[in-house]
Amino acid sequence: MTMATIESRLAELGITLPEPPAPVATYVPFTIHQGVVTISGQLPLRDGALLATGKLGAEVSVEAGKAAARACFINLLAQLRAACDGDLGRVRRVLRLGGFIASTPDFTQQAAVMNGASDLAVEIFGDIGRHARSTIGVAVLPLDAAVEVEGLFAIG
Amino acid sequence: MTMATIESRLAELGITLPEPPAPVATYVPFTIHQGVVTISGQLPLRDGALLATGKLGAEVSVEAGKAAARACFINLLAQLRAACDGDLGRVRRVLRLGGFIASTPDFTQQAAVMNGASDLAVEIFGDIGRHARSTIGVAVLPLDAAVEVEGLFAIG
Amino acid sequence: MTMATIESRLAELGITLPEPPAPVATYVPFTIHQGVVTISGQLPLRDGALLATGKLGAEVSVEAGKAAARACFINLLAQLRAACDGDLGRVRRVLRLGGFIASTPDFTQQAAVMNGASDLAVEIFGDIGRHARSTIGVAVLPLDAAVEVEGLFAIG
Repeated sequence: MTMATIESRLAELGITLPEPPAPVATYVPFTIHQGVVTISGQLPLRDGALLATGKLGAEVSVEAGKAAARACFINLLAQLRAACDGDLGRVRRVLRLGGFIASTPDFTQQAAVMNGASDLAVEIFGDIGRHARSTIGVAVLPLDAAVEVEGLFAIG
Repeated sequence: MTMATIESRLAELGITLPEPPAPVATYVPFTIHQGVVTISGQLPLRDGALLATGKLGAEVSVEAGKAAARACFINLLAQLRAACDGDLGRVRRVLRLGGFIASTPDFTQQAAVMNGASDLAVEIFGDIGRHARSTIGVAVLPLDAAVEVEGLFAIG
Repeated sequence: MTMATIESRLAELGITLPEPPAPVATYVPFTIHQGVVTISGQLPLRDGALLATGKLGAEVSVEAGKAAARACFINLLAQLRAACDGDLGRVRRVLRLGGFIASTPDFTQQAAVMNGASDLAVEIFGDIGRHARSTIGVAVLPLDAAVEVEGLFAIG
């Protein structure tokens, strides 16, 4: 897929990639080794504020959680673009997404929430956007974020 | 290890690999990159039903949790066989298993539960079945599953 | 970075690497594939005892949690040294750390706790110690440990 194709899909979806969010502590947003980009867990930050805080099953609805997962993936993309020196056309495959959903003990729709990230990966990248995935319900996340998503990407 | 050896071990253990379970959402069961198969988190599904739901420390006993972890590994194997085009003799190493154990806050025997998966890996693959592992107690899992296991495998 | 440089940094920091802790169950401390060492989740064990048990947000303070994360990283290093046949000068990059912080549902400073591991990685390895990272708050950890850290390292 060319950079132009991906940039135009982003435009069609009305997505402007932000400046890649800075890590909230002493680490880096990504490392690259043998063509694999490992990206740090991203929170649903937009314009410096969290899109959703709290827990699924309590104050955060499934729809709000899904929007938060989508925002996490947009931040992954912003980091990935930096890892690719600006050229998302170098992406060969979304290898894996890991979804962490802050949940009350009785909330069990983590998969639906995480689809906010997975669906967007496929909308943007098509078949090479199809990825392996693990999704879990966690007790709580840094800064009380509702969702955190990490990613593994193959680039050329 | 040859495919015949592995298939006969499975037979000795009375294990018939199922059709690989379909993902419960918009992603794929595995990706392959540079000889490494990354397999999505597997739930303890057998014949379409979850073997164990709820939490360790409450309604799920350590023995039931262990059986669930074993079922997760069987599903990983079914996915892995598909990734190997049917030939498990191509497996070079079980690199890593990640174990997510749905737990009440006071249950601390996650390692014993996860042994249901780890022991089976070694029973089937011998020394190349020995793997790195991380096991954690999580608040809750998709579909209220008691256990979820993800895996990383090297293939030839 | 040479082995001598790293050993002298460890000495300056007053760190003596322990015998690598044995896994608490049927798996191995690490696997190596294509120059990447995958190390099992390490608990804050020192001299066979856990440095901190219980949960952040309850009986474990942020400072104690940070010290526990640091102890986990020291154990990762001990495993890594074994993976490098004793020569930490072979380390090319700390690729990723995964931090699991046992948390009450209202504790949200997981990032500060995990800095105990991340800061030490950079103190010891400098720029090649800068890593991708995911940190989550989990319900509970094996043996009631307050913190668990897993790692991915590139070696030459």
